[in-house]
Amino acid sequence: MSRRAFLGLGSGVLAAGAVGAAGFEVGRRAAVERLPGSPAGTHPFTGPHQAGIVTPAQDRLYLAAFDVTTTSRDELVGLLRRWTTIAARLTQGLPAGPLGPVSGPYEAPPDDTGEALGLPPARLTLTFGFGRSLFVGAGAVPRDRFGLAARLPAGLVELPHFAGDALDPARSGGDLVVQACADDQQVAVHAVRNLSRAAFGAATIRWTQLGYGRTSSTSTAQQTPRNLFGFKDGTANVMAEDTEALAQHVWVPSGEAWLAGGSYLVARRIRMSIETWDRASLREQEAVVGRTKGEGAPLSGGSERTEPDLAATGSGGSRLVPADSHVRLAHPSTNGGVRMLRRGYTFTDGNDALGRLDAGLMFLAFVRDPRTHYVPMQTALARSDAMGEYLQHTGSGLYAVPAGVTAGSLVLGADGTPVATAASPFVGQAAFD
Amino acid sequence: MSRRAFLGLGSGVLAAGAVGAAGFEVGRRAAVERLPGSPAGTHPFTGPHQAGIVTPAQDRLYLAAFDVTTTSRDELVGLLRRWTTIAARLTQGLPAGPLGPVSGPYEAPPDDTGEALGLPPARLTLTFGFGRSLFVGAGAVPRDRFGLAARLPAGLVELPHFAGDALDPARSGGDLVVQACADDQQVAVHAVRNLSRAAFGAATIRWTQLGYGRTSSTSTAQQTPRNLFGFKDGTANVMAEDTEALAQHVWVPSGEAWLAGGSYLVARRIRMSIETWDRASLREQEAVVGRTKGEGAPLSGGSERTEPDLAATGSGGSRLVPADSHVRLAHPSTNGGVRMLRRGYTFTDGNDALGRLDAGLMFLAFVRDPRTHYVPMQTALARSDAMGEYLQHTGSGLYAVPAGVTAGSLVLGADGTPVATAASPFVGQAAFD
Repeated sequence: MSRRAFLGLGSGVLAAGAVGAAGFEVGRRAAVERLPGSPAGTHPFTGPHQAGIVTPAQDRLYLAAFDVTTTSRDELVGLLRRWTTIAARLTQGLPAGPLGPVSGPYEAPPDDTGEALGLPPARLTLTFGFGRSLFVGAGAVPRDRFGLAARLPAGLVELPHFAGDALDPARSGGDLVVQACADDQQVAVHAVRNLSRAAFGAATIRWTQLGYGRTSSTSTAQQTPRNLFGFKDGTANVMAEDTEALAQHVWVPSGEAWLAGGSYLVARRIRMSIETWDRASLREQEAVVGRTKGEGAPLSGGSERTEPDLAATGSGGSRLVPADSHVRLAHPSTNGGVRMLRRGYTFTDGNDALGRLDAGLMFLAFVRDPRTHYVPMQTALARSDAMGEYLQHTGSGLYAVPAGVTAGSLVLGADGTPVATAASPFVGQAAFD
Repeated sequence: MSRRAFLGLGSGVLAAGAVGAAGFEVGRRAAVERLPGSPAGTHPFTGPHQAGIVTPAQDRLYLAAFDVTTTSRDELVGLLRRWTTIAARLTQGLPAGPLGPVSGPYEAPPDDTGEALGLPPARLTLTFGFGRSLFVGAGAVPRDRFGLAARLPAGLVELPHFAGDALDPARSGGDLVVQACADDQQVAVHAVRNLSRAAFGAATIRWTQLGYGRTSSTSTAQQTPRNLFGFKDGTANVMAEDTEALAQHVWVPSGEAWLAGGSYLVARRIRMSIETWDRASLREQEAVVGRTKGEGAPLSGGSERTEPDLAATGSGGSRLVPADSHVRLAHPSTNGGVRMLRRGYTFTDGNDALGRLDAGLMFLAFVRDPRTHYVPMQTALARSDAMGEYLQHTGSGLYAVPAGVTAGSLVLGADGTPVATAASPFVGQAAFD
């Protein structure tokens, strides 16, 4: 069934079903709004990889890490089944449950919270990941709550302490993570809220992060956005169109047991000292970044997309791209050729007692192995990056991101939309087989 | 000069001026981006009233309250002059200063922080207000730091303690407030950041609030949005088109000395217990609100815009619009005919230790006198509103919002754009005359 047909059917039956299900009182609430019946503004939920990785980066983020509170493997599986079904619905502009926000029985809570009613699907993607603690617990002594210890992916290490880290445990870790991205913040928050609701009794939110401006493009069709330092960010990102780079740097290869076709998500909450930055000269700012502020060109010359010439020297023999500049230290040639797919967002979370904004970058990167593709680079950056003076890492998470769910495996209800049953597929099912 | 001509000139001269001002190094940074030169997506900054009140509500909010740290009246005036000039620039898509983010001297910090470069003006408005503490201090003993005590507007009272208030002083009050609204969050945050930067040495941020979804319309041309309870909000709002209601309920009348043509801003951070709400039945939710969830029609019948029939009874003689429903208690007929212009936003600020989202409504309302137009209603709501069970007021502010600045009074520089001088007009100048 095509996605268009699937959705057309879904909406039609929903509208008709509303009358039957509600029965009483429905006359008084006859003007029930139709949900968006068209797939415009949606990305497929199903596929070999999860959506929200190579999907052209949406404008807004709501990230939520969860602690699993149940100790039952079956209840964990049940949660993942519900989440998978709900995500398959929400990303297609459907309500979280088949009755929706206003058409269920009048004496029961609605099966969707309703604040996305009338909003477009806004390109919502929901991407799920498993933290190390899900497999072996978070303490020094391994704790195999769910019989998953033997399935711990090799790359799901404990990240080392990097120089300058000031991590808040309340903004770090988590057994499960959900990355909600959409072009409308309310659509992303609505999705996490409804997933959190479906987790009642099985998992609770550990931390969340709202991001209001993307700081990377993931498609060559997108303009490079600017971060809170006022510089273009993510110019040299791995783009969705570069399938060779994706295979080499982003997707876990087929030899890697159950995680094949998946990826790893590195999440770092990086506070930026913007008040200090704003007092630095334009010269200092450009030297720190290694690029011009206006165009985003490397200081070795050219335009934004010109490859930096790290060997180029100016008058007096000094490097045009300074030795401690961010662009040099993060460049693949300085890091054994590794690259990342970055998908970060800008955040502003109020202010501290001195009136300084608690603002910065929610760094999100997808890599095939954090041991080769993140730890060495971050070790070098933490040690030498001139930008480090203006940054503080205040939160951290690393998650194994399973491959996608196959379209045909979803269980559909009488109305043709996904429903959660004991036979529903779920994200990461391979780890439980 | 028309706004179009004004802006056209501004941009042209800016681009040319960049070369002269930067001089050295400018070749290497030749590809300086042009600022948006068109007034598309801008609202006039000048006018009889400040923008951001009857302006059709934008999608995003960034509100900042400031404490004045200087004790010098001249420095306070200097700050207000700078803010007024910067606001006149930013709202028209110009950078905070005449050199902009990338065209100033290379050895100095840029006069704009740069993260809005390339973004559209996004209908940015900046609205300024004065807290009671600016006039008489915040303690029990009046403190007239700036010789303004005699100018304290009669309506700028200390709000009483309302039943159920759980106010955090760190989210309340402030000598000055800036309401930044725009359709792009980054444009709103950029504006507050640059105003905060211009306040260095004179004022510091006390608290800020990011709002990502508007919860009211202020124009009949806008759709009614939904709040986090999933209900349409602001259906009965005072709309920009209703000039009679504005005169009666929003603008301070001409007899009221320096504040004439201004308004009062009531700001209340209202946390919503959404997890509890989500467990309430649809019947309970609709009874609490007094409207249907889908259409937003009063429970007395009709459609969204139908006036509630508060006297209507159903079978058994019970009121169709319950006695403790929000719509009844907030209705003008229950409140001596008063109405407010509401301009609130939804927020989500992480979560508490129990995993519940710290989410809700940043209630913003503009009224001609809070003593008649807010305090009685909130007293009644706090006492009797069935919705109170699901709400907690966690922050509070009340501000006098001066009238607007006259277009012709702005001082323009050689490039035709506003510049801050000792003769520049400023918002609220009448209070200092």
